[in-house]
Amino acid sequence: MLKDNRSVRRFDNTYEIDNGILKELVGLTRYCASGRNAQPLKYRLVTSREECDSIFPFLSWAGYLTDWDGPEKNERPTGYLIQCLNTDITKNCLCDDGLQLETITLGATAIGLSCCIIKSFNKKGIKDSLHIPDNLDPIYVVAIGKGIENVVLKDMTVDGDIKYWRDENKTHFVPKRPLNQLLVE
Amino acid sequence: MLKDNRSVRRFDNTYEIDNGILKELVGLTRYCASGRNAQPLKYRLVTSREECDSIFPFLSWAGYLTDWDGPEKNERPTGYLIQCLNTDITKNCLCDDGLQLETITLGATAIGLSCCIIKSFNKKGIKDSLHIPDNLDPIYVVAIGKGIENVVLKDMTVDGDIKYWRDENKTHFVPKRPLNQLLVE
Repeated sequence: MLKDNRSVRRFDNTYEIDNGILKELVGLTRYCASGRNAQPLKYRLVTSREECDSIFPFLSWAGYLTDWDGPEKNERPTGYLIQCLNTDITKNCLCDDGLQLETITLGATAIGLSCCIIKSFNKKGIKDSLHIPDNLDPIYVVAIGKGIENVVLKDMTVDGDIKYWRDENKTHFVPKRPLNQLLVE
Repeated sequence: MLKDNRSVRRFDNTYEIDNGILKELVGLTRYCASGRNAQPLKYRLVTSREECDSIFPFLSWAGYLTDWDGPEKNERPTGYLIQCLNTDITKNCLCDDGLQLETITLGATAIGLSCCIIKSFNKKGIKDSLHIPDNLDPIYVVAIGKGIENVVLKDMTVDGDIKYWRDENKTHFVPKRPLNQLLVE
């Protein structure tokens, strides 16, 4: 499951995602640990065509693929979860954001869906389009859908280049540091 | 697995954890998404009795249990992973910390171990005891071992109190917000 949980940026745009599925994924986050047990994160579900179209222009995709502006219309995701910090509860969610994002993306993978966690987006654009209240700060966007992209992990080469790349078949390669680089001796 | 992955603060102190197990858990993090694919996190493994004893005084346990200073000697964890940010790579790991901590704790749960993610600790004490190099910033400590604590999730009551508590049998109860509180309408 973990190995299948890859960041995917091209989707089957004909696939309809049910709101109920996204609610179930959010429900999984109730089983995550939470710093000081504050549980300050909330999610805006996005599944309608209109809303998907309205937020797409505010998202940035794949910074290292400089000749690619993001998925074409027929390869765009058909759902999103907007992870928001309830700033009435706390200004700092510690690592709750990542704990929950890993859980959501693993949960999606388990039912045959794919995700891409997006940090680079126009916050005001997203807030305004979706009428997100002032006390909720959108911190991550998760694009969700039926993935149509082949993603392959590679051991990083000795030059240490971290940039992912695509080959002529649009296979997406991601270099990963070897285990020994992740251990403090 | 997700439901069994609970934060546990009392362990079987006679249980010996093999270094190899901790290495495998760190190996799982290679399958996590990483912001800009930078992969800036490293782990210091702690399994020897001497090192476990040396870092224990620098950890804070269960802030809401004001009459409890942390586990007694016979209930202390027998392993730790110190998650460190390699500041030569980046000063900001985005949500990589949480993505990896969820993966590690799920991986531990899958092999019958329990964890507690600790954010409140004396950083200098940990760095000095374990001789962690200057460019590595310890951001989280994961206590790991054979858990002996019963943890029960409860729906939060209407008063919205987020404090966890223990009953007379030392069962640890954690109030969780209901799903409707996690959705932005």
